[in-house]
Amino acid sequence: MEQNIRVAELQKGQQVQGYYLLNDIRRKFSAAGNPYISARIADATGEMDAKLWNYSGPLTEEDSGKVVLLRGEAGEFNGAPQFTIFRVRLAAEGDPYDPRELAPAAPLDPEAAMAEVREILASLEDGDYRSLCETMLSRHEKAFQSIPAAKSVHHAFLSGLLMHTLNMLRAADFLAGLYGEVVCRDLLLAGVFLHDLGKERELARSQLGLVTEYTVSGKLLGHLYMGAREVSETARELGLPEEKSLLLQHLILSHHGEPEYGAAVVPQCAESELLSIIDLMDSRMEIYAEALSGTPAGSFTPKIFALEKQLYRHE
Amino acid sequence: MEQNIRVAELQKGQQVQGYYLLNDIRRKFSAAGNPYISARIADATGEMDAKLWNYSGPLTEEDSGKVVLLRGEAGEFNGAPQFTIFRVRLAAEGDPYDPRELAPAAPLDPEAAMAEVREILASLEDGDYRSLCETMLSRHEKAFQSIPAAKSVHHAFLSGLLMHTLNMLRAADFLAGLYGEVVCRDLLLAGVFLHDLGKERELARSQLGLVTEYTVSGKLLGHLYMGAREVSETARELGLPEEKSLLLQHLILSHHGEPEYGAAVVPQCAESELLSIIDLMDSRMEIYAEALSGTPAGSFTPKIFALEKQLYRHE
Amino acid sequence: MEQNIRVAELQKGQQVQGYYLLNDIRRKFSAAGNPYISARIADATGEMDAKLWNYSGPLTEEDSGKVVLLRGEAGEFNGAPQFTIFRVRLAAEGDPYDPRELAPAAPLDPEAAMAEVREILASLEDGDYRSLCETMLSRHEKAFQSIPAAKSVHHAFLSGLLMHTLNMLRAADFLAGLYGEVVCRDLLLAGVFLHDLGKERELARSQLGLVTEYTVSGKLLGHLYMGAREVSETARELGLPEEKSLLLQHLILSHHGEPEYGAAVVPQCAESELLSIIDLMDSRMEIYAEALSGTPAGSFTPKIFALEKQLYRHE
Amino acid sequence: MEQNIRVAELQKGQQVQGYYLLNDIRRKFSAAGNPYISARIADATGEMDAKLWNYSGPLTEEDSGKVVLLRGEAGEFNGAPQFTIFRVRLAAEGDPYDPRELAPAAPLDPEAAMAEVREILASLEDGDYRSLCETMLSRHEKAFQSIPAAKSVHHAFLSGLLMHTLNMLRAADFLAGLYGEVVCRDLLLAGVFLHDLGKERELARSQLGLVTEYTVSGKLLGHLYMGAREVSETARELGLPEEKSLLLQHLILSHHGEPEYGAAVVPQCAESELLSIIDLMDSRMEIYAEALSGTPAGSFTPKIFALEKQLYRHE
Amino acid sequence: MEQNIRVAELQKGQQVQGYYLLNDIRRKFSAAGNPYISARIADATGEMDAKLWNYSGPLTEEDSGKVVLLRGEAGEFNGAPQFTIFRVRLAAEGDPYDPRELAPAAPLDPEAAMAEVREILASLEDGDYRSLCETMLSRHEKAFQSIPAAKSVHHAFLSGLLMHTLNMLRAADFLAGLYGEVVCRDLLLAGVFLHDLGKERELARSQLGLVTEYTVSGKLLGHLYMGAREVSETARELGLPEEKSLLLQHLILSHHGEPEYGAAVVPQCAESELLSIIDLMDSRMEIYAEALSGTPAGSFTPKIFALEKQLYRHE
Amino acid sequence: MEQNIRVAELQKGQQVQGYYLLNDIRRKFSAAGNPYISARIADATGEMDAKLWNYSGPLTEEDSGKVVLLRGEAGEFNGAPQFTIFRVRLAAEGDPYDPRELAPAAPLDPEAAMAEVREILASLEDGDYRSLCETMLSRHEKAFQSIPAAKSVHHAFLSGLLMHTLNMLRAADFLAGLYGEVVCRDLLLAGVFLHDLGKERELARSQLGLVTEYTVSGKLLGHLYMGAREVSETARELGLPEEKSLLLQHLILSHHGEPEYGAAVVPQCAESELLSIIDLMDSRMEIYAEALSGTPAGSFTPKIFALEKQLYRHE
Repeated sequence: MEQNIRVAELQKGQQVQGYYLLNDIRRKFSAAGNPYISARIADATGEMDAKLWNYSGPLTEEDSGKVVLLRGEAGEFNGAPQFTIFRVRLAAEGDPYDPRELAPAAPLDPEAAMAEVREILASLEDGDYRSLCETMLSRHEKAFQSIPAAKSVHHAFLSGLLMHTLNMLRAADFLAGLYGEVVCRDLLLAGVFLHDLGKERELARSQLGLVTEYTVSGKLLGHLYMGAREVSETARELGLPEEKSLLLQHLILSHHGEPEYGAAVVPQCAESELLSIIDLMDSRMEIYAEALSGTPAGSFTPKIFALEKQLYRHE
Repeated sequence: MEQNIRVAELQKGQQVQGYYLLNDIRRKFSAAGNPYISARIADATGEMDAKLWNYSGPLTEEDSGKVVLLRGEAGEFNGAPQFTIFRVRLAAEGDPYDPRELAPAAPLDPEAAMAEVREILASLEDGDYRSLCETMLSRHEKAFQSIPAAKSVHHAFLSGLLMHTLNMLRAADFLAGLYGEVVCRDLLLAGVFLHDLGKERELARSQLGLVTEYTVSGKLLGHLYMGAREVSETARELGLPEEKSLLLQHLILSHHGEPEYGAAVVPQCAESELLSIIDLMDSRMEIYAEALSGTPAGSFTPKIFALEKQLYRHE
Repeated sequence: MEQNIRVAELQKGQQVQGYYLLNDIRRKFSAAGNPYISARIADATGEMDAKLWNYSGPLTEEDSGKVVLLRGEAGEFNGAPQFTIFRVRLAAEGDPYDPRELAPAAPLDPEAAMAEVREILASLEDGDYRSLCETMLSRHEKAFQSIPAAKSVHHAFLSGLLMHTLNMLRAADFLAGLYGEVVCRDLLLAGVFLHDLGKERELARSQLGLVTEYTVSGKLLGHLYMGAREVSETARELGLPEEKSLLLQHLILSHHGEPEYGAAVVPQCAESELLSIIDLMDSRMEIYAEALSGTPAGSFTPKIFALEKQLYRHE
Repeated sequence: MEQNIRVAELQKGQQVQGYYLLNDIRRKFSAAGNPYISARIADATGEMDAKLWNYSGPLTEEDSGKVVLLRGEAGEFNGAPQFTIFRVRLAAEGDPYDPRELAPAAPLDPEAAMAEVREILASLEDGDYRSLCETMLSRHEKAFQSIPAAKSVHHAFLSGLLMHTLNMLRAADFLAGLYGEVVCRDLLLAGVFLHDLGKERELARSQLGLVTEYTVSGKLLGHLYMGAREVSETARELGLPEEKSLLLQHLILSHHGEPEYGAAVVPQCAESELLSIIDLMDSRMEIYAEALSGTPAGSFTPKIFALEKQLYRHE
Repeated sequence: MEQNIRVAELQKGQQVQGYYLLNDIRRKFSAAGNPYISARIADATGEMDAKLWNYSGPLTEEDSGKVVLLRGEAGEFNGAPQFTIFRVRLAAEGDPYDPRELAPAAPLDPEAAMAEVREILASLEDGDYRSLCETMLSRHEKAFQSIPAAKSVHHAFLSGLLMHTLNMLRAADFLAGLYGEVVCRDLLLAGVFLHDLGKERELARSQLGLVTEYTVSGKLLGHLYMGAREVSETARELGLPEEKSLLLQHLILSHHGEPEYGAAVVPQCAESELLSIIDLMDSRMEIYAEALSGTPAGSFTPKIFALEKQLYRHE
Repeated sequence: MEQNIRVAELQKGQQVQGYYLLNDIRRKFSAAGNPYISARIADATGEMDAKLWNYSGPLTEEDSGKVVLLRGEAGEFNGAPQFTIFRVRLAAEGDPYDPRELAPAAPLDPEAAMAEVREILASLEDGDYRSLCETMLSRHEKAFQSIPAAKSVHHAFLSGLLMHTLNMLRAADFLAGLYGEVVCRDLLLAGVFLHDLGKERELARSQLGLVTEYTVSGKLLGHLYMGAREVSETARELGLPEEKSLLLQHLILSHHGEPEYGAAVVPQCAESELLSIIDLMDSRMEIYAEALSGTPAGSFTPKIFALEKQLYRHE
């Protein structure tokens, strides 16, 4: 029996033991009336359907998304891979697994990325914007470094928010120069850094930090409102001039561009307009990157739900 | 020369002296190169075009919407009434005019209406919602009693916000009973009371309290966000449970019903759904009341811009 | 073997005999080539999947929705409840079952509700509107008291139309007072009473009175047109003034508010505007009531198809 | 002084006497306080602005659209033609003017067109559809022959409805052959003949038969509903089978194709689908014909309001 | 064992041998781990699910849509017909099957239809339009005669493009007469003939000529652009005046009517407007014909995806 | 009398002589019947209303947009500046005026900008894309350097297309690096360079090179189609691989992003998606730059037609 084989590398007939995520647990009964569990085992490399026959043990739907130690065998059912679990228990504290091997993560070095974000913030010439951003960063440092940017669609992996924000900061830094006549670099970069911080409260996360669901306040209030509200409070604490606080709140509230995409107000200054375009651009490019990565040259992806179209990977 | 004749009662040829609003002042030059002022005189009963010939005096566009003492004569030009101003000066402090005669006002007794609002708030059984509403009322009492609910379209007169809110409270009180199985009266009434308080900061007002324009923060943030944010802060000061604060913010943020009508989030609980419908209903009924009041039975109004249709007044 | 256990109370392993609805009958063949029936048994309390193995008897798809006498046992398949039918026959005339126990019904006393409707109609001061409503009621009394208001979404149970109409009459009665300056109570209440009467011809109903499908004329003409047309004819018989007949037809034709929601014309008088809002409100509140009734406090419903959103049940 | 010169042929400086339409009468006062009338004189060939100075006589706004006998002189003001009226009185009964010279009319011979319509109706093989159409024609003969099909946009001239209907009948006759596999000629032709008959009650007309406004019932009910309702009544009188009456009503109610274009229901059978397309086609072709008739080859019309685009007339 | 029984005539229990299309091949494994093929057998009369158990032979997904010689037995599974294949091989060159019996085809005689198209083109009086059409026809003759007009929805059978184009030519010929005042027959007919020729490059076809997929250039450029571009090049070769070439390109680019339906520009001359309406009409009528052909009189089709509605087949 | 004073610097009462543009010429008659011309004089700095009294000379509407030599005096009418022309004649060949002083131009050095464009094109590593771009540039060099990018809205000045394209090239060059994993720099930059070249044929230009109108082919075909078609032809001449030609045509045809904004197809590869976003971004930023340039800090612009909102200029 082999140890901790990655899901993407499991071969039919292979017997393994190791730590995996157990997702989407559902308790069922067979036609013969025997209880079993249908679920999916997963790690950072992929997912596979799994069955645990004749099981009336303690695991329930509520344990979905948790880390387990399991033993079983890779097989196939109806032409699709299927894993049969022989034994399973929840991972205990101190168990020797590496969370980074279980949860998919952004293709970047989080420490280096954080350093680059800090450097960019330190470059803001306006002391008000700079101190507000640095205060917000210090309050949200851990989440900002680690949480996904979404439940699905794009950047739905560990450090997804960091990757998305850093990419946008780089683009914004360049474009603030290109459109320097009409865009204030400090305001734009501050807005980019702050725009999605409300997601920390909007997205509920599993043990390993992946997004499992929206929170109640995430659905009833949304991350635009929650982010802008916190900036308003922090700006007051730090004594920012009202106009600067107002502009930052406006950038956050309007960054989805149009009401039908969730903007609470429409962009009305050059920096909010540009922020909403950079956000759109980075989301789109990441959707392309994720969708095209598994597509052969010269062919199309299946229809991408979020864009309502198929994407083409040219030679 | 008669004194303080109401605008709606001015007769052609009549010479008058009195206090009026001077709106939409524009400085112009005649074909002969002489400076003059084109404006409109107004009071609570109506408006009339006005000219002040050969005038190079101190009044400028900036004085639009202020109270003046003037002398002149009602006439007619191109088939429409026109008032010729002979002399004019800004009203000084202590001048003997009654603001209520100059600005149009809601057809109710503000004191009695305020008493009814207080009575309804006092009837809330939930101490948290009640104390929050009463605290908000005490902080906004003066504005709540006096400001219009809009710049135009409906309730654009003094105490318009009070009239709109009170009507909605009455309807909500009844409907909370009719839909008692699914609606919490205390939450609904609190939401109704609070829903438009953010308008105090959204609408800029003239000397007499009428709305002349949106404020900068009104345009960049909107009254939904500003209202919800203040409720969030006040709820924290008063120590409300998080769920109650969350629900009130949700009711305010969603009261426009759909994103394309300005809702920051869509209504997701029975009280927010009902609040958005009651708000729609009271706005519509007031638009009908204002539009039909000057329309003969058996005929249609001109096309109402906000509703994109003509309205019919039946026998 | 127990008698007539309610579907919601069937326990796994329980053998029962009794009268049930047999819905969605489909004749199939097993992999082994044996004929069987897949269907659902139902009563006023709920539904359960059912199988009738090795059956080549007389029941066909056409018998879906009829009352049967059956004997069988409650079990489970793939984690979901499943009922195995041993014997079944169509209920015959005179069989001792109570239709009210088989079909879900509105939570009200139909007789009392009818009395309240009659009382409200009797209170109309305008003799024309009153006699027209009372004539229409006398012609449609049985259907009005018993039919559902829809095939699904909301009020899709016996006496659903009565419940919907009565709730709207109560709301309209109060709101006619609140907006008395611009709304004629008699016209509004008459319109509310009449607005959905065309549904009698629009909705095809099963033996027990539930809606199984739209009728051909229901799809090709719609209940707005059919209802207005009958009011036009009845008004002529009764000698109503043309203006009153016209207004009633307008209220019916416009009560869906906007063309994209099925309105044949848009509301153009205060009563039709208010009627369309009250209809929307009562439908929405009933959707919330039905959706939230099975939802734990602090959680969301699944996405409600008709509203394209999830609903939240607060504490 | 010349007699009855056509408006399109009036030359600057020419003095004339004759019968004209006097449209859009407005009573005004000059800067000097003298009353005058601003209006437009018109006949079948065109319109021209007109002034009647120092006039306090009996003509009022209500007389707009009536025939007058007038004397005056063609001139010019601000670069545009302007007619100065010297004397004017309403035409009396028996006055020697020819209405066909005053009101624009369809470019066809109404008698011949009516004969062709009758011939087409007589060719219907289905006695039910034929008798219903012939009964409806006999009841509406005069209006059907003479009224415009609209207030503006297309076919807004005398016999416009006849021209529009006849063109559509010709197209439908051919297309019923082309799509004979799926289209019933009798039903399609009957539907075409009946589809716009409700316009007789929807459009208010001037003394000369031009459309001046929508009627109250035209706005509150619409010609689709009024036309279908009358067909329903007539079909019952004549004893038509229910299915045929239903189909005809469906064709009328759906002939605008989509709810946003005013259809009460969407087309659901081949004949209603085809009818709605033929109606669209004939309207569009007439809009092109009217718009391109005054446009030089190789150039574009101004933006056509109804189509939201400019049209091109090629060589 | 019978030979070449048509799919629509296969009886349960019947053993057959013959040539069929094998569509949608998928290789799978049974629960017991044995490889098998799931596919559908088809010919011009219909399709049936098929299984080929314990098969590890050479056929793969790539062979979908090819002609095979097979032997097997018609049966049933879960109430639906299912064919069990015993033996199968790809058809070889020279095998005695008739492609016309395997692929569904338009209900017309292609030779006669081509002759009629040629006759219509020969009737064009304008030598430029005529020579361009005849050149295009000579270059695309084979494809124009044989390819489907679509992958699904309507005219998705052999010679579908020919049938669609010929029907439209007939309608256009008649309507060019009816609207002769504003429509140039030569331009309209040329545009109709050319409008869908770009589909030859847009649609990828199987061995038998049916559409299996869009081509890469079909998705990235579309048949409107590709068709117009080729007309532009051909017109230059033939020396057509620029205006005529421009008009033909415009007719092709705009024939979908509105941008949301794929038009590259909106129709702006009478011929392009009429062409887009005729195209819509012929597509709609064919959808009705295909959908109603299997529907009993007095009933509705299932919801037709392309039209978002059910269609009614009257008596 | 002063010479060639710039329009933006004309003072009331100043008499001048010089070369100006004479725009929007309209011939009119005064109330007294005297012919005059109403027009606007303009140069690169602005426009002013102008009158030329008692003029029956040779200038007509057709001369709008041409350069004239005139003499006159700056004045004021109804509060707005107005220029009275005393004498005027069309500028003759050889007249000593500088077109760059008369027509507004992009704020860049065209020579330097062209050099930068050439340098970027020379940096393309793919020889096919590079040679195609350089060939296209050599064929359109003069127009590319000088024409506006639009008739209005943004970049509607000389060298506007060059400025827009260069800005986009700079942004694309940076973003191709940021999204290098999914974007091919050569394809993106080639697409950016080519995307608006079709505007040369789409926009009709005045004597001085400003856009006065769309051309006939511009309206009937659009610049997307015309640009892609020419790229297709040029690619064939140069022997580019089909895939590269296809991709370039796709980038051009899709660069408006959505059909409702004029895209002939939607972007389906990463480069076309990014190109459409960069185009949107540069247009928006230029609209902000033009609109905010005349707006005081802390205030809003009037509503910008193209964006349907007001823009805010912060401190």
